[in-house]
Amino acid sequence: MSLMLDEIGQQPTAIERTIKRESRKINAFAETIKRAQPRLIVLVARGSSDNAALFGRYLLELTTGIPVSLAAPAVHTLYKKKLDMRDALVIGISQSGEGVDINLTLENAKRGGATTLAITNEAESSMAKLCDETFLIHAGREKSVAATKTFTGQLLIFHLLARALSNSKDKMDVDRLPELAESALKLRPQIASLVERYAFMDHCVVVGRGLNYANAYEFAIKLMETCYVVAERFSGADFLHGPIAMVDSGFPVFFFAPPGPTLPGMKELIAKVNSIGAETVVISSEASALKEAHRAIKIPERIPELLSPIPYIIPAQLFAAFLADAKGLSPDQPRSLSKVTKTV
Amino acid sequence: MSLMLDEIGQQPTAIERTIKRESRKINAFAETIKRAQPRLIVLVARGSSDNAALFGRYLLELTTGIPVSLAAPAVHTLYKKKLDMRDALVIGISQSGEGVDINLTLENAKRGGATTLAITNEAESSMAKLCDETFLIHAGREKSVAATKTFTGQLLIFHLLARALSNSKDKMDVDRLPELAESALKLRPQIASLVERYAFMDHCVVVGRGLNYANAYEFAIKLMETCYVVAERFSGADFLHGPIAMVDSGFPVFFFAPPGPTLPGMKELIAKVNSIGAETVVISSEASALKEAHRAIKIPERIPELLSPIPYIIPAQLFAAFLADAKGLSPDQPRSLSKVTKTV
Repeated sequence: MSLMLDEIGQQPTAIERTIKRESRKINAFAETIKRAQPRLIVLVARGSSDNAALFGRYLLELTTGIPVSLAAPAVHTLYKKKLDMRDALVIGISQSGEGVDINLTLENAKRGGATTLAITNEAESSMAKLCDETFLIHAGREKSVAATKTFTGQLLIFHLLARALSNSKDKMDVDRLPELAESALKLRPQIASLVERYAFMDHCVVVGRGLNYANAYEFAIKLMETCYVVAERFSGADFLHGPIAMVDSGFPVFFFAPPGPTLPGMKELIAKVNSIGAETVVISSEASALKEAHRAIKIPERIPELLSPIPYIIPAQLFAAFLADAKGLSPDQPRSLSKVTKTV
Repeated sequence: MSLMLDEIGQQPTAIERTIKRESRKINAFAETIKRAQPRLIVLVARGSSDNAALFGRYLLELTTGIPVSLAAPAVHTLYKKKLDMRDALVIGISQSGEGVDINLTLENAKRGGATTLAITNEAESSMAKLCDETFLIHAGREKSVAATKTFTGQLLIFHLLARALSNSKDKMDVDRLPELAESALKLRPQIASLVERYAFMDHCVVVGRGLNYANAYEFAIKLMETCYVVAERFSGADFLHGPIAMVDSGFPVFFFAPPGPTLPGMKELIAKVNSIGAETVVISSEASALKEAHRAIKIPERIPELLSPIPYIIPAQLFAAFLADAKGLSPDQPRSLSKVTKTV
């Protein structure tokens, strides 16, 4: 068994541990932040962590009403521009906490007046040291180059932070996430057999929207780095603005289609892609979205959309890990990669 | 000749006309904005216009020091969340001005307290009517579905706005852009013959960074919609965080490598991709970047990086238009697309 597959299986435990150990600190920090009333939240990350940030971007705007921006690290690292970051909360997300560009961006933001926060797996990392506060992912060391349990750990931290910052009465039921992750893992045998069909797939498109837009990016990056599939990723709306032209008969397109306000548009898109004769693979709990799919990955229960990203990415992680195996590749040691990528 | 190729050729004239007709209005608006001292700039767009916004994001942060964010329209349209947009300048970018999601986002931002600005080709559009101010691209009607002259028109408006907002002494020499665009068009015969080699290319990667990051997105979308090539787009740094694993011997990778602070990293990346045995195609004025490329697209003169995006995208537009022709496709009427895409 690959390390990746093993680490995918550790997610319910890792999530439970992180909720238990970090909630109190996150709640206390959120109170400080609420008093400071930031005008802007900026997220800084690369790779899978940047995909987690893309989720954080939607979740934090939706729960706090504060505008959120994904940083362009080059502005800080290569162009060395100091931005006006007064009243901004700047959050770095990095598994290792050693991303040079992320840390330079955080330092520069601090000089610009920002409050800084680190989300990392490593308590002793450079990022943890330079930030005003650190939230830890208690995932244990991640040995596979392909990030899985640290990715969902990052999503989880955003859930905990959003819950703590939100003034809304309907609190998010984050405590259900370990159980929902466990339930998603039951799809394992089904996906192990499904991937056979895709052993020779060399390109595809992955589509997500809203809170599951980040999952399209994350599934695509997993397919690229562990299966060497040229996997494009789009929001449903952006896909219609041009890229859909490249799709023809038999072209594989994967969809995240959780219930909620993004579902009607996603179903329309699935129907449109079907009408082109392309191959649609749909991850959803909803019979109405699955019924037209060439291949259905059925999430066992209807999960509220706000909680869906973690349980919905798990079958996609399993798909990538099993597909790598079906292609005769090791997902733990992709060619040209190492665990910590240092870019400026 | 395709409409696309014809419209690519119209760009120097369109740029000159827009500079002449819009500069005064843009300068006046910039004075109002400077007095208002916005804390945040938010850009709202889809498709090629969103690629132009990605350029605007870098350019405006670099010239004004104000943080810039690319909006997530779904937050406004599907989730109907009102964000706190006091002290924000929100800019909609749309060729037609009829993007439903863009306009809903602008309306919602206005309700949240934002000042709104439209960048469009259509003076009478819904977007122009709902915004506080409108900057027009005087490109004439764009008949090809593939946006070219409106894309560079949008980049130009960002140039004019950045120049007007900047307090820096070294004013950008935007007036040189018509001449630089004209000079880039001289690459036409070279590119017409270069594309023969890529007639059967079915996938590739396009890499850009900083001010030319948006060009990677724009070249990729042109290849997807006019040539049906599965074209991935990355920043040089993000490419190293996973996706590079999918590149093996003969895999085509295109690079934008203008002079400036992004050049050393881009040269390292070109060398790394070469060492994998992949095929590198480099767009650059710099001998040091071109010398290792399998195929060089030499920009005739060393253009300051700040002015490079328009002259650098022109050979890429030509490449897509000629490649579509080499593949026996019409770039003006891609399958599954129409000129105005209405998404919510």
